[in-house]
Amino acid sequence: MSENSSASANIGVVGLAVMGSNLARNLASREGNTVAVYNRSRYRTDELVQAHPEAGLVPSFSYKDFADSLSTPRTAIIMVQAGKGTDAVIDELVAVFEPGDIIVDGGNANFQDTITREARVRETGMHFVGTGISGGEEGALNGPSIMPGGSVESYKTLGPILETIAARAEDGAPCVTHVGTDGAGHFVKMVHNGIEYADMQLIAEAYDLIRRGTGKTPAQIADVFTEWNQGELSSYLIEITAEVLRQVDAETGKPLVDVILDQAGAKGTGAWTVQNALDLGVPVTGIAEAVFARSLSSSAGQRAAAQTLGGPSPVAVQDADAFIEDVRQALFASKIVAYSQGFDEIVAGAAKYGWDVKKGEIARIWRAGCIIRAQFLNTISDVYTENPELPALLLAPYFREHLEAAQDSWRRVVADAVRNGIPAPAFSSSLSYYDGLRSERLPAALVQGQRDFFGAHTYKRSDKDGTFHTLWSGDRTEVAQDPSTH
Amino acid sequence: MSENSSASANIGVVGLAVMGSNLARNLASREGNTVAVYNRSRYRTDELVQAHPEAGLVPSFSYKDFADSLSTPRTAIIMVQAGKGTDAVIDELVAVFEPGDIIVDGGNANFQDTITREARVRETGMHFVGTGISGGEEGALNGPSIMPGGSVESYKTLGPILETIAARAEDGAPCVTHVGTDGAGHFVKMVHNGIEYADMQLIAEAYDLIRRGTGKTPAQIADVFTEWNQGELSSYLIEITAEVLRQVDAETGKPLVDVILDQAGAKGTGAWTVQNALDLGVPVTGIAEAVFARSLSSSAGQRAAAQTLGGPSPVAVQDADAFIEDVRQALFASKIVAYSQGFDEIVAGAAKYGWDVKKGEIARIWRAGCIIRAQFLNTISDVYTENPELPALLLAPYFREHLEAAQDSWRRVVADAVRNGIPAPAFSSSLSYYDGLRSERLPAALVQGQRDFFGAHTYKRSDKDGTFHTLWSGDRTEVAQDPSTH
Repeated sequence: MSENSSASANIGVVGLAVMGSNLARNLASREGNTVAVYNRSRYRTDELVQAHPEAGLVPSFSYKDFADSLSTPRTAIIMVQAGKGTDAVIDELVAVFEPGDIIVDGGNANFQDTITREARVRETGMHFVGTGISGGEEGALNGPSIMPGGSVESYKTLGPILETIAARAEDGAPCVTHVGTDGAGHFVKMVHNGIEYADMQLIAEAYDLIRRGTGKTPAQIADVFTEWNQGELSSYLIEITAEVLRQVDAETGKPLVDVILDQAGAKGTGAWTVQNALDLGVPVTGIAEAVFARSLSSSAGQRAAAQTLGGPSPVAVQDADAFIEDVRQALFASKIVAYSQGFDEIVAGAAKYGWDVKKGEIARIWRAGCIIRAQFLNTISDVYTENPELPALLLAPYFREHLEAAQDSWRRVVADAVRNGIPAPAFSSSLSYYDGLRSERLPAALVQGQRDFFGAHTYKRSDKDGTFHTLWSGDRTEVAQDPSTH
Repeated sequence: MSENSSASANIGVVGLAVMGSNLARNLASREGNTVAVYNRSRYRTDELVQAHPEAGLVPSFSYKDFADSLSTPRTAIIMVQAGKGTDAVIDELVAVFEPGDIIVDGGNANFQDTITREARVRETGMHFVGTGISGGEEGALNGPSIMPGGSVESYKTLGPILETIAARAEDGAPCVTHVGTDGAGHFVKMVHNGIEYADMQLIAEAYDLIRRGTGKTPAQIADVFTEWNQGELSSYLIEITAEVLRQVDAETGKPLVDVILDQAGAKGTGAWTVQNALDLGVPVTGIAEAVFARSLSSSAGQRAAAQTLGGPSPVAVQDADAFIEDVRQALFASKIVAYSQGFDEIVAGAAKYGWDVKKGEIARIWRAGCIIRAQFLNTISDVYTENPELPALLLAPYFREHLEAAQDSWRRVVADAVRNGIPAPAFSSSLSYYDGLRSERLPAALVQGQRDFFGAHTYKRSDKDGTFHTLWSGDRTEVAQDPSTH
């Protein structure tokens, strides 16, 4: 490792759009950090340095100077648009950095790309860390939840720096941990976003049910959410839901939520979460329904043509308060299912890709800074820390009890939705999952019979080992199969 | 094009496992065809030729001889395990074939691979056709549904040969058509399989609901399916469901369906269908729930641990016949939704990849030979032939009327399932989709508000053009955004 006498910074940021600028300012504001900054277009660097003299940023206008300004082992966080831009910056850094230096990608990379990049950079003797950063622009500035993946060695240098800027939970612990090697950080960030989709969809369904069921105004429903935010649902998303519902459009005087076009956008991480769950064979039905609900909402042509499809005349609920309490219970139960499914995906991903992911730690670092931050994550963290081998989150005593206590409400709400023609795909899918998981027998046995019938796919029996096939187009006797020949 | 004086065959098959052997025999049995066969291991070729002297197969033991045995333009169908094996055989054929010759992949390839392969082979001046073949081993022998994608020119030679072996619908038309260029055939086959997953899951749920709801035995429920097979549900899958349910296990004397282990397997095309739908932004909720239901059924450890989760005590239905009729209506309605979603995916895929797919033709070639063959596909074919621009299948007058007539039953069944703790994920998801599509307003507006709040993702308004952002952490005024800068 070379001596680097002109070095004055202990951490660098490449890419100074809003996220990168905010992260650089956050880093610079913490004791012990001096931050080198570089951006492809010089004006952004100048702008940032001039706008924030208090930050003492060290600007560079070439990668060479940037490298010279960093003490060794050099540590630089790339904050550019995910994709080819990231690879170009990695190449530049590899050219001016040295073995032992640490290149961090803080963008929303696909974890598969991160695995590839880590392997490539590792060959140079440098470290590559793909890290999820959640919390948006404000989180980047004031304290995000940070999910770094990479070598254990790199975390020794990087971890203490990230701890200075991470959000802090109520107990003061910074929301960052070494998630696992190579793609682990971006994988976990992906699942975080998938859970976020489910959480948002569940809240949207709860709002819609209350609105259509009770006729309350958005402002009145905002009060409901504010109240819910005091209890076990307490979370950032519930809090901002109240804010959004309370907002009045200045131009029309209507509730803003009634003016916003009801077509939800998506940036892809929700879809990735479901696509990877399909590869891993993990049923993430809540996330899938949430992603598809957004696609459906954006199918403008079909929706316009479908307006005249027949449906029931909704009947207002008799007891609004009781109904709202049912919806609250249904929301909490469905949320438990969505998180349980998300953690199942993390477990399956960790097994497939060889990551030693600590589920309790993941829940811990999601307690603050990120979009799904919630009271509830304290419990998840405790549950997994106590029992890392729990077969499913929803089977922990605390969650099991809540599900069982909530289920009558949950069933009433879904049945009401169905009868009144109100779509509640995530509520009902979560309930189906709950009932599927606890079913002693599932009709999957019939599916196996069908598959054996038309495709000779064979089946197993519940009363003995082996693989079997019925000679459906012959005499219908059963023959034992050697699975290796099929 | 060379003269090929020793040529005696007009079509060749490479790969003589069960599917390839059956396809070769099917081809050989049709007037006008002489079939060249080749297999990497010689014994399989010898075995096939000796076992079926009536077929007059022309064996080859090198690719050179195989090429020499084919008249030009040479046409050869590869029937090997999808993946690298396919590429190896393509390389061998390219080495001995000539420009104008046609290489056909009849395996279950991923359509993206087919697009790549077609481009590669096209550079040699040869044609590459990726074709879906549905109907399993029996279909290959007696008449499959065939979905070829490739150049229009290649279809002039290949089409008439495939027409000789394809299944024939009741009206005598062969179940094959030129689906579109390059990956179109394998894409449509993939969606076919996805729909098959949904169809099987819906049938499984219908069975489970009747069984748990009425206490009827599998044999009694077999009679229900046999009766249903006389009406609008008439289809191969309904027919074989009755066969499977009627089957008694010789060893135990129990219904076979009660002996089969209730963990459903999957071979990946269902998952592909959902993964591509996510890329295309098409909500295929019925297929997704079906794929996930199989994963859930196979989560043996979690299921074992979840057996004690609380649920309601199911109450037997009062009027079994009325309930069964409700289930029949719910099944038909859910099936319409699943097919509508599948065709939406075909439309979106065709638009993305530049295929001129005729939906009416696709439904037409699925009427016989394939696993989802059904009476119902006649209607779909008619509907799309009459109105190719239909925004969604379920909006065609015939289907709309059926959905509207069925919806009371559908709602009763899903509500009953929910109240009694019987999982019906595909039934309820399809109903949610129906209610979502016809909703004048969706809570997606709230989701957009949340996204704007935490991520400044902006929103559109329903009352004017433009893109807007509310300064949530500022004075909460709304600002118009130039979308290009965000």
